[in-house]
Amino acid sequence: MEYNGKNKIVTLCGGVGGAKLALGLYRCLKERGRANDLAIIGNTGDDLDMFGLHVSPDLDTVMYTLAGLSNPQQGWGIADDTYRVLDLFKRYGEDTWFLLGDQDFATHILRTRMLKEGVSLTEITATLTVSLGLDCALLPMSDSPVCTYVETLEVGEIPFQEYFVRRGATDTVVGIRYDGIEQAEITAPIAAAIWQSELVIIAPSNPYLSIEPILQVKGMEQALLQCNSPVVVVSPIVGGKALKGPAADIMRSFDGVEPSALGVAKYYQGLVGGFVLDVSDDALAEEIAAMGYQVLVTQTVMQTNEDKQLLAEHILEEFLPR
Amino acid sequence: MEYNGKNKIVTLCGGVGGAKLALGLYRCLKERGRANDLAIIGNTGDDLDMFGLHVSPDLDTVMYTLAGLSNPQQGWGIADDTYRVLDLFKRYGEDTWFLLGDQDFATHILRTRMLKEGVSLTEITATLTVSLGLDCALLPMSDSPVCTYVETLEVGEIPFQEYFVRRGATDTVVGIRYDGIEQAEITAPIAAAIWQSELVIIAPSNPYLSIEPILQVKGMEQALLQCNSPVVVVSPIVGGKALKGPAADIMRSFDGVEPSALGVAKYYQGLVGGFVLDVSDDALAEEIAAMGYQVLVTQTVMQTNEDKQLLAEHILEEFLPR
Repeated sequence: MEYNGKNKIVTLCGGVGGAKLALGLYRCLKERGRANDLAIIGNTGDDLDMFGLHVSPDLDTVMYTLAGLSNPQQGWGIADDTYRVLDLFKRYGEDTWFLLGDQDFATHILRTRMLKEGVSLTEITATLTVSLGLDCALLPMSDSPVCTYVETLEVGEIPFQEYFVRRGATDTVVGIRYDGIEQAEITAPIAAAIWQSELVIIAPSNPYLSIEPILQVKGMEQALLQCNSPVVVVSPIVGGKALKGPAADIMRSFDGVEPSALGVAKYYQGLVGGFVLDVSDDALAEEIAAMGYQVLVTQTVMQTNEDKQLLAEHILEEFLPR
Repeated sequence: MEYNGKNKIVTLCGGVGGAKLALGLYRCLKERGRANDLAIIGNTGDDLDMFGLHVSPDLDTVMYTLAGLSNPQQGWGIADDTYRVLDLFKRYGEDTWFLLGDQDFATHILRTRMLKEGVSLTEITATLTVSLGLDCALLPMSDSPVCTYVETLEVGEIPFQEYFVRRGATDTVVGIRYDGIEQAEITAPIAAAIWQSELVIIAPSNPYLSIEPILQVKGMEQALLQCNSPVVVVSPIVGGKALKGPAADIMRSFDGVEPSALGVAKYYQGLVGGFVLDVSDDALAEEIAAMGYQVLVTQTVMQTNEDKQLLAEHILEEFLPR
């Protein structure tokens, strides 16, 4: 086939769960000498101001994971990081519910300084990732701030991290609002990457809290629909349960749907054409295919780096246009 | 004697050297149940922006010293602090010549956030010192920024910390400029403390780089002259050498004077009435007395905490009005 200018593998990605697939894709493309064809669109709706510093948890989780720095147990933060900065914050009477490691602080301090200097979050993220030796693109979904708020039965509307970290995602979610989303526009590097995409993969991240804010950025859905590339989603729900985090609970309380890969398929219908289903959910394959999806049934639960790379291989094999 | 409303012991203070006497005074007054009568006016001419954070080295040195947190070897920073934040800064390609420990970062992050919120440096410093359990007042010389620049023979004019830390104070100083000093005014708490002072002590800090910026703040000298309290200086030059730092070299290159306690006495003549001379400089006592000073000859070289407290005791005994 003649080269048509399309060479990008684009993935839409939240935090820990999404970072696993992003790492799989990165390892996979690196082996093929194509790491710089990977463009990861990261969710910034979870960003927060902590001690006056701009923290981008999802971007950092992806960045640390791909750089081999991340804490393998918790999936976020830096491996073997210490908590000395927070120690003194405690003495100063500051609330230290959001756990930031010492090395991690360097990222937030640097990002905050550059933002103050007028550098865009896109450029800042590029600087950080290049410094850490990454040769793929990590692209914040937008350069204007978006803040996800969660409406809960228990305590009303609270910012996402308050719901997720401080209160341990135990509240019943009945509404979600992406504050600032009206001002958020697709960035030039994202528009270019999608335009040049061979394949777009929605990682197994929370549809409501990680993927939806990305999709609601002005121009994002349109770009995905117009690029004529296959768009594929990896179900974050396996056996009726979320692989990680509160996606299943939210599906029930917010969407009024029994959590299942079927619910995920309904959620993305119209935008997405390919569906990656876990082997344990094989029974749903026919029904999802009947909805118009091209279905790949494979092992989607990723523990080791080999699992991550293997899932990425399977997805590329099945969906990458030949 | 009837109480005349004057109960404050005020000290003007730079970094490491000054902090030693400040600690001596603090211990001394604490024993007498009078710690809250101590008001320390700290130099902020050495403040700098590091990674977008506002660092106040002299204030922090005094604060950590009095809180028992400081590194006893280097005299600044926090004891047993680690350098993990800087580790990642290095990976990001940042210049890490100014050594900031991890716990230390918490101070700078918090100060920067509060400044951004519009809180004054005076209020911020009060918050920090109270959190660390100090019951004396540490007062920044002004709430508006002053930045000391040093004119060197070797590389022209450079900011103080560049001269002092980055280049190790090895250049020949031929000029000093306190940038922003015209806008800097005495704060209300400093004016009140000086007005209520029983005694004002200029710590054995660098006259040019630590004390002069304090004195040049608008209203400072006038307040000292009008308060009618004894003003005493502890010579930072002993045996023709500076106890710490480049004061002796600067005295020679900038003031054209052979470094000695005599030079210090000339420097402060007109403002200061009491002079604390080290026993090793006993031979100069008569000449300094002839200049109009009330001279106290005592051990001024402070190694242990007991040395510091003893010097403070001697000064209070000699100069505190009865």
